[in-house]
Amino acid sequence: MPQGQPESVPDDGLTTRQRRRQPVLAVHTGPGKGKSTAAFGMALRAWSQGWPVGVFQFVKSPRWRVGEEAALRTLGESGKGGEVTWHKMGEGWSWIQRPGAERDHAVEAAEGWAQIKRDLTAETYRFYVLDEFTYPMKWGWVDVGEVVATLRARPGTQHVVITGRDAHPDLVAAADLVTEMTKVRHPMDAGRKGQAGIEW
Amino acid sequence: MPQGQPESVPDDGLTTRQRRRQPVLAVHTGPGKGKSTAAFGMALRAWSQGWPVGVFQFVKSPRWRVGEEAALRTLGESGKGGEVTWHKMGEGWSWIQRPGAERDHAVEAAEGWAQIKRDLTAETYRFYVLDEFTYPMKWGWVDVGEVVATLRARPGTQHVVITGRDAHPDLVAAADLVTEMTKVRHPMDAGRKGQAGIEW
Repeated sequence: MPQGQPESVPDDGLTTRQRRRQPVLAVHTGPGKGKSTAAFGMALRAWSQGWPVGVFQFVKSPRWRVGEEAALRTLGESGKGGEVTWHKMGEGWSWIQRPGAERDHAVEAAEGWAQIKRDLTAETYRFYVLDEFTYPMKWGWVDVGEVVATLRARPGTQHVVITGRDAHPDLVAAADLVTEMTKVRHPMDAGRKGQAGIEW
Repeated sequence: MPQGQPESVPDDGLTTRQRRRQPVLAVHTGPGKGKSTAAFGMALRAWSQGWPVGVFQFVKSPRWRVGEEAALRTLGESGKGGEVTWHKMGEGWSWIQRPGAERDHAVEAAEGWAQIKRDLTAETYRFYVLDEFTYPMKWGWVDVGEVVATLRARPGTQHVVITGRDAHPDLVAAADLVTEMTKVRHPMDAGRKGQAGIEW
């Protein structure tokens, strides 16, 4: 396949080099498979560029993403590309030590977002995966307007990819790249079970 | 998100355990981004399971997938998961030494498919990425009927994911899992250039 060419060149006074360095906000949404998987695939490229990668996993099951986590941690520790930092809500955010405390998912999600805001301000990472982050937005656990405003105003060249179904229209409007994954056929329709190596 | 539950349990006499071990043929198609990226994300899970992974890259540009290739090779060499073997058409298949020979993409694609057939018969890998393989099928470089019949008859538990636009209807019909990636918005629409770490 030929490399993509822009359909038009904007009259924005930017050089091609500058345009290559614009921060990207990507959203992977829709009911089909591959939203998070593609985000982690993008993280491979970021790692390969030597960029610090931050993953924020807004899911509850510790079983999910175990393969991706093992792989990205191994890559981060290889010393060949960027460092990888993996935060997950399901086991309490890594920066919060709160043994025995009762969990409140809404509070945990808000804490996750607060940390992301701090990291965006500090430019901690160059590539962010906000996995399943559409759900806390949908459920009102974080303020959509504030999320969108914060992402729009983020400094430097920080790329962000957000995954999950039912992306809020304001998030879609703010994004540079939106892909909808549509289910055409899924083995669970035929009564199959999730499989190690395929589903997690 | 809760783990997926089958909508119905088929009357096929299989145990859940057996159903968890059925080989999956997945197709990522459609005009949107993320088809290959999601396939490489799936490869992370396969690697994490310790499965041998074979990538067959049916593309011409050496620039594409450099990040994914670097990452998967690093993982394969880490000794922590499965081994990764990466073949690419763009630089001549790795098993063909033909310096200076003129390239014929149709012949190269057919040679790639012939090797895949040998590997499926030998059960060389447990997870295959046939990246951009829809195009040689579309262009008649490989026989669609033979590809589908070979995939349907593959022995053991070999998972295969095929990526690319315009997947042939017979391939879609044979697949267990088909996801269509739809472009909602892409930065190149706004005249942006491809970016290191995002596009490759």
